[in-house]
Amino acid sequence: MARQEITVGVIGLGLVGGSAALKLREENFAHKILGYDKNESHAREAINLGIIDEVCSLDVLCEKADLIILAIPVNSALTVLRNVIVNIKPSAVVVDFGSTKQKICELADTLPNRDQFVACHPIAGTENTGPSAAFSELYQDKVNIICNRKDSSEQAVEVATKMTEALGMRIKFMDSASHDRHIAFVSHLSHISSFTLGQTVLEVENDEENIFDMAGSGFASTVRLAKSSPEMWAPIFTENADNILMVLDRYISNLKKYRRLIEDNNEVELKKLMKETNVIRKVLKGEKTEVKTPLTNNK
Amino acid sequence: MARQEITVGVIGLGLVGGSAALKLREENFAHKILGYDKNESHAREAINLGIIDEVCSLDVLCEKADLIILAIPVNSALTVLRNVIVNIKPSAVVVDFGSTKQKICELADTLPNRDQFVACHPIAGTENTGPSAAFSELYQDKVNIICNRKDSSEQAVEVATKMTEALGMRIKFMDSASHDRHIAFVSHLSHISSFTLGQTVLEVENDEENIFDMAGSGFASTVRLAKSSPEMWAPIFTENADNILMVLDRYISNLKKYRRLIEDNNEVELKKLMKETNVIRKVLKGEKTEVKTPLTNNK
Repeated sequence: MARQEITVGVIGLGLVGGSAALKLREENFAHKILGYDKNESHAREAINLGIIDEVCSLDVLCEKADLIILAIPVNSALTVLRNVIVNIKPSAVVVDFGSTKQKICELADTLPNRDQFVACHPIAGTENTGPSAAFSELYQDKVNIICNRKDSSEQAVEVATKMTEALGMRIKFMDSASHDRHIAFVSHLSHISSFTLGQTVLEVENDEENIFDMAGSGFASTVRLAKSSPEMWAPIFTENADNILMVLDRYISNLKKYRRLIEDNNEVELKKLMKETNVIRKVLKGEKTEVKTPLTNNK
Repeated sequence: MARQEITVGVIGLGLVGGSAALKLREENFAHKILGYDKNESHAREAINLGIIDEVCSLDVLCEKADLIILAIPVNSALTVLRNVIVNIKPSAVVVDFGSTKQKICELADTLPNRDQFVACHPIAGTENTGPSAAFSELYQDKVNIICNRKDSSEQAVEVATKMTEALGMRIKFMDSASHDRHIAFVSHLSHISSFTLGQTVLEVENDEENIFDMAGSGFASTVRLAKSSPEMWAPIFTENADNILMVLDRYISNLKKYRRLIEDNNEVELKKLMKETNVIRKVLKGEKTEVKTPLTNNK
């Protein structure tokens, strides 16, 4: 497949799919971009914003595309993958961009043309949704996790790799079960914590002006993810339920520990706990910390 | 007190005090800035960074300053206010910038010169600490909450008002009990939620590289506050314990509600809850929402 001839078909033209389309065109990775969105106004918007060249049906998209990107909620991705994978060209590759990987890999294993499918999770996002939220630099310098690589053909992994590079991303390989466990901690828990924080404040704070005036105190950043799309996130939570329940239990138990220390007026232990957690600053910079798991006694 | 003659004394030369000093000089509000910090290297750093003109003892600072700003942890502020308020000039004004207001107002009520003290909480901050974290625009367009205004003299409130304007802030008046209740929700809970999130992830994630690679998924912003100073935050948590415990209980109860809905695979209710919480987007923009308290049934 010569690079200049690649036709990309994007299914789902919101933030995730739209941003990929913009960047793949910008990098001359995509020769032509076809788009499908079950929300017709989104499809029209994607055309108007120059995100895609043509809107088409799923059938036509399968018939023409060399690379198909599923950028839809994880539950819809299961259904669409099932329909799409049997209709693609013999040389075509299908990737999905969903935030959970175990269910879709399990499904793919039961479908024809398994080796033409590559399970991806580009770790990038904002709290905004729809084609107008898309921007070409969304993925720059982020990580794309490719799961269960050995179940895809070498050619398919190569196409996914080139796409990843065109998006400006690094690749990380992982098995789908590990992915779902890790991402439950680092992403899914953050979203639940943020939604619940927003809910708690809205429930109790009668005067919205107070929230607005006081949001500069840290609330704005911790609650940012509570603006995220329910259509996208509810299926993620239920699909990755086993991991998330385990993570949530641990989070709630740690909150109760803080609660107890505050009730006991135990500033010494509070400071110790907070200081141990401050190491996150280095971790987020990618610096090696001396104590790899500072809280191992709690494991 | 002619404006050009104001000598400002800043006690605590970290992010909060340092940023105020920089801005008050920039705006020609302060004619001269004296500084005190019990951490001598911070004091030297503040001189070297041009944040203050002179380091001096608390006694000299009280003797010379027309406006004294307490920008130290809330427990230290109680001790320092007690010592400072009896030594200030008859025309001087003392303000504190702490994140809790009830305890310091209660203390001030028992001290001499109560009416020369104005309890402030400028709602601004970052997760960084020390003089090097200070920048003159920290307070720009944010809100300074002045508590129990009627217990301060008109002249003192006027000075605090002019200082607030010089910092680029709006003023909001509140009683100290309301302040502490509201701020527990909008700020203190965010910090506990963020610290606990960081702790939970560090406990379980053996491979720090995974955290780094996956942090683009929302974790980085929800965990930002977990980089905050334990010295500053532990005393806030214990000082505002009554409100925080109430808030934490509500937060934990809402997390359990999410947990139950996820366990029950109840996407319909999850979406409903998340959609109701999405209103936070408008609230944070200062837009009026149609439903003032969307979750009133839970109140």
